[in-house]
Amino acid sequence: MSDKLYLEDLHPGQTFTSHTEEITEAAIKEFAENFDPQPFHLDDEAAKSTLFGGLAASGWHTAAFTMRLNVTGGPKLAGGIIGGGGEINWPTPTRPGDILHVEYEVLEVNPSRTRPERGTILLKTETKNQHGMVVQTTKVRLIVPRRPS
Amino acid sequence: MSDKLYLEDLHPGQTFTSHTEEITEAAIKEFAENFDPQPFHLDDEAAKSTLFGGLAASGWHTAAFTMRLNVTGGPKLAGGIIGGGGEINWPTPTRPGDILHVEYEVLEVNPSRTRPERGTILLKTETKNQHGMVVQTTKVRLIVPRRPS
Repeated sequence: MSDKLYLEDLHPGQTFTSHTEEITEAAIKEFAENFDPQPFHLDDEAAKSTLFGGLAASGWHTAAFTMRLNVTGGPKLAGGIIGGGGEINWPTPTRPGDILHVEYEVLEVNPSRTRPERGTILLKTETKNQHGMVVQTTKVRLIVPRRPS
Repeated sequence: MSDKLYLEDLHPGQTFTSHTEEITEAAIKEFAENFDPQPFHLDDEAAKSTLFGGLAASGWHTAAFTMRLNVTGGPKLAGGIIGGGGEINWPTPTRPGDILHVEYEVLEVNPSRTRPERGTILLKTETKNQHGMVVQTTKVRLIVPRRPS
């Protein structure tokens, strides 16, 4: 547990990078069937005549996939990755076979004024494909415990 | 196709409501195993000692579940539900057995200045449980085609 990051271990400008993982066509279609059953996420042929011009992952699949990378390969925050929300954008579609990773930057570190045992950080994430194109950005405020004294 | 909504059919203040659907404990755990494998999303006993105080759905599961309600029971936008991003917040955790629905409000309608065939809307969504508590809010900008003349 000694490699866990507490609030005292974090500072603005600090960066992290996750490992890479492939998002497969089968996974894109399965997610879409469960959560976003629209033609451009389900069928390559049908997707060609849409804004996407070909099969693309649901933005919410990119978000969920990014969360898996966060949990399994992102900064090891003590207490886990717990956020109340923020901003999310998808500048480029995620495509079948894309190999994604996440780059992190700590933007703010704020000890709580009322809870001495914890604080928050504002974390920026960029999910990038194998060509370096950004398929998702987020800015989320996360709760992080302070190091027990 | 005549019930599809084009940009001309939408105006600020317009509201919609989806149907309801239950989010099960099994679905919460399955989503967490795939995308957000943290104790408070996987195991009720382990969750009790965390900030959540009991098993809670991943926020990204609430987001994906909301998207299913959007696609299967939200406003029937011509061209589908295509967004580039926005804001998302989770004021209250989603719990096993919660019965969710989504309430929508059109905040803005903006014809494109450069693309005569389409425009965007700014749509607010509130995902509520059976007690009327808001488990998720979003504000997203969606692309909507204009009615062909």
